[in-house]
Amino acid sequence: MGTRAGIVVTGTEVLTGRVADRNGPWLAERLRQAGVDVAAVVVVGDRPEDMRGALEYLAGSGVDLVVTSGGLGPTADDLTAAVVGEVQGRPLDLDPELEQRVAAVVEELMSRRGWRADPEATAAGVRKQAMVPAGATVLEPVGTAPGLVVPPAGARGGPVVVVLPGPPSELQGMWPAALAAGPVREALAGAAELRQGTVRLWGTLEAQLAATLREHQAGLGGLEVTTCLREGELEIVTRFAPQAQPAHDHLVAVLAEEYAATLFSTGPTLDELVADALRDQGLTIATAESCTGGLLVARLIERAGSSAWVLGGITSYANSAKEQLVGVPEEVLAEFGAVSPQVALALAEGARARFGADVGVGITGIAGPGGGTPDKPVGTVHLCVVGPSGTEARSVRLRGSRTAVRERSVVLALHLLRHLLLGGPPA
Amino acid sequence: MGTRAGIVVTGTEVLTGRVADRNGPWLAERLRQAGVDVAAVVVVGDRPEDMRGALEYLAGSGVDLVVTSGGLGPTADDLTAAVVGEVQGRPLDLDPELEQRVAAVVEELMSRRGWRADPEATAAGVRKQAMVPAGATVLEPVGTAPGLVVPPAGARGGPVVVVLPGPPSELQGMWPAALAAGPVREALAGAAELRQGTVRLWGTLEAQLAATLREHQAGLGGLEVTTCLREGELEIVTRFAPQAQPAHDHLVAVLAEEYAATLFSTGPTLDELVADALRDQGLTIATAESCTGGLLVARLIERAGSSAWVLGGITSYANSAKEQLVGVPEEVLAEFGAVSPQVALALAEGARARFGADVGVGITGIAGPGGGTPDKPVGTVHLCVVGPSGTEARSVRLRGSRTAVRERSVVLALHLLRHLLLGGPPA
Repeated sequence: MGTRAGIVVTGTEVLTGRVADRNGPWLAERLRQAGVDVAAVVVVGDRPEDMRGALEYLAGSGVDLVVTSGGLGPTADDLTAAVVGEVQGRPLDLDPELEQRVAAVVEELMSRRGWRADPEATAAGVRKQAMVPAGATVLEPVGTAPGLVVPPAGARGGPVVVVLPGPPSELQGMWPAALAAGPVREALAGAAELRQGTVRLWGTLEAQLAATLREHQAGLGGLEVTTCLREGELEIVTRFAPQAQPAHDHLVAVLAEEYAATLFSTGPTLDELVADALRDQGLTIATAESCTGGLLVARLIERAGSSAWVLGGITSYANSAKEQLVGVPEEVLAEFGAVSPQVALALAEGARARFGADVGVGITGIAGPGGGTPDKPVGTVHLCVVGPSGTEARSVRLRGSRTAVRERSVVLALHLLRHLLLGGPPA
Repeated sequence: MGTRAGIVVTGTEVLTGRVADRNGPWLAERLRQAGVDVAAVVVVGDRPEDMRGALEYLAGSGVDLVVTSGGLGPTADDLTAAVVGEVQGRPLDLDPELEQRVAAVVEELMSRRGWRADPEATAAGVRKQAMVPAGATVLEPVGTAPGLVVPPAGARGGPVVVVLPGPPSELQGMWPAALAAGPVREALAGAAELRQGTVRLWGTLEAQLAATLREHQAGLGGLEVTTCLREGELEIVTRFAPQAQPAHDHLVAVLAEEYAATLFSTGPTLDELVADALRDQGLTIATAESCTGGLLVARLIERAGSSAWVLGGITSYANSAKEQLVGVPEEVLAEFGAVSPQVALALAEGARARFGADVGVGITGIAGPGGGTPDKPVGTVHLCVVGPSGTEARSVRLRGSRTAVRERSVVLALHLLRHLLLGGPPA
């Protein structure tokens, strides 16, 4: 089974869905890189009995390490340190030096922002944050909250618990110190390399792939294969120990042969393929978006260094903006309507001309929920990509909510770009 | 304690963080609306022993209902139905009529996309999806996978388990049928109304709020108060039974008095406040963004019906685009540099003029990780909002990653808009 870990994410705001959890995925990936398999991520609210239940469940499932995030603040609902101390058999003690360090941080923060608060009440919050389970290792605060490494007391056994703050930047900043702590190093001493491979297909039905995997089952020993269908992309991920590398290579060869028409990547994501192609081919790009309203250009710019190839984009939501800012001819708008292949082409050409870019992208459509007609129902989207080597266009009727239609349109535009720049499976 | 539920999200792609879970939060909010408190969300991979462990943990914590998402596909790693059937004491049986209905759906899907697959292998996948725990209620497929309602067999007791597919659109489409199923109605029969209130502060330290809450502790009986600091916004959420409404109203009054300078909402989100203000005041808006590259305009357009007030935006990443498309004077760029308050103002005015909008927003900055200088380090961002009633501007040095800098800039721009349109706490 190898070395295994569990993650406990605390916070009613995460449990109730008001805030998306970013710590669970981040920790899972870091643990994988350390050769540790994650058994489960448990999200609980700020209630001591629920947190205790989650810690006991993970201990019972035999993990070597538990990482918690959140519940280290000064408010009464922040109780992770107390509950972890209790579960690990280590009662809380005030660490006076830590108290001074936290007080200094809080004071600096408040004076910088010009805030005032009742000093006694603030001191009570600071004291709470300086309560440490006896024998635990303190991880120095990145924000105001210190982290903790809490091994089980005496002979009671069970996983080492690493307690980290909830804000992602603080948690991430504290991770190296957590990994370096003695009890964590010991818990992970047996962790072996865990490899991961990814194959991406565009336009293959999951049932079809299931048949292929069943057919070749015999050759897949030692691989954990999982498949995930998302926005039309079928992602096949294998996780394996180094000795199963030949089985992995065999699977990739089988997929490359059977799905030559849809396999577009044996690793990089769609976004990486497009960005690398633009950079490697020395091309610049600009967009003119209507229904996706800036989502495509925002996604193209996500990548650091993208200013070398992304010149910009125009979100031309209003018809007047399509005409005046992108230069879509008035008569094209009048004859075919704003949602038409002709306008998508004019937007792509306009973006290219206005920004002086090598590649232009145009997207126009009806994201809904309103605005649909019998002729052009909600979900109708026209996309066009124009570059030095030619033009790619697609017209589709997408299903789903406003958000889904916008996201799927962006994915489709990226596949059009991929095909224009790199060939391979059509969009 | 009331009626409680647990959620199990399955899928190695979610557990490893490759895909963000959207089902847990969605289900948690729907359950709350039904008066059900969620005790925990557990994410596990596609391994039978981990899924079994999660189901037993939740059953042991005394929940009345468990909802699972994912693991209903035709591939070998889809094993939710089998594990749930086993835990509930209900062995799987083939449902031949369901098999026919699933086969018809798969056939239609494949013919529509022009895909072919080995018929025998496809049939095996279909048969797998038509295996139903004895005595379970089948929820008709929205995609290809049927859902299930599986009560515990005989006298064994424990929660009713609702098994739903992983794709969010399928899960959401199936939810009304799940709620209407007899065993679910029985499990939720005792659920009482669970109210929720939200107060939002902009620029208050969590330690300060903690002191206030401690001071007024006596008057907060019956309220579950949680606080969450996110991107500078301190969100205070209370959950309570109807009889605790006076305690809730008291808390809101206390906060309104003590935090008059930072309280900007007793309900709506920042995005809702800005959108409603634009709509109610009959104003249109346009943006010119550099480092945020379309994120602000994409967020403004997220809301359905936003075409009534959002005219569009220009992502002017390159200097030439700032000049030619937004009309930033060449000499302003030369004298002050692209990242300057002067250029932020020129971008806001340019967006307003080019789109003919009532309100213009300009953002320019250095998101990093490269591009910083001693004078203008990474995180330097200048923002400006120009409207009929005046101008708001801010220059900040934000901390964090490229993504964090971009997101915080968008939040700050929205607060500038809020203050320009509605007054209240400054941005």
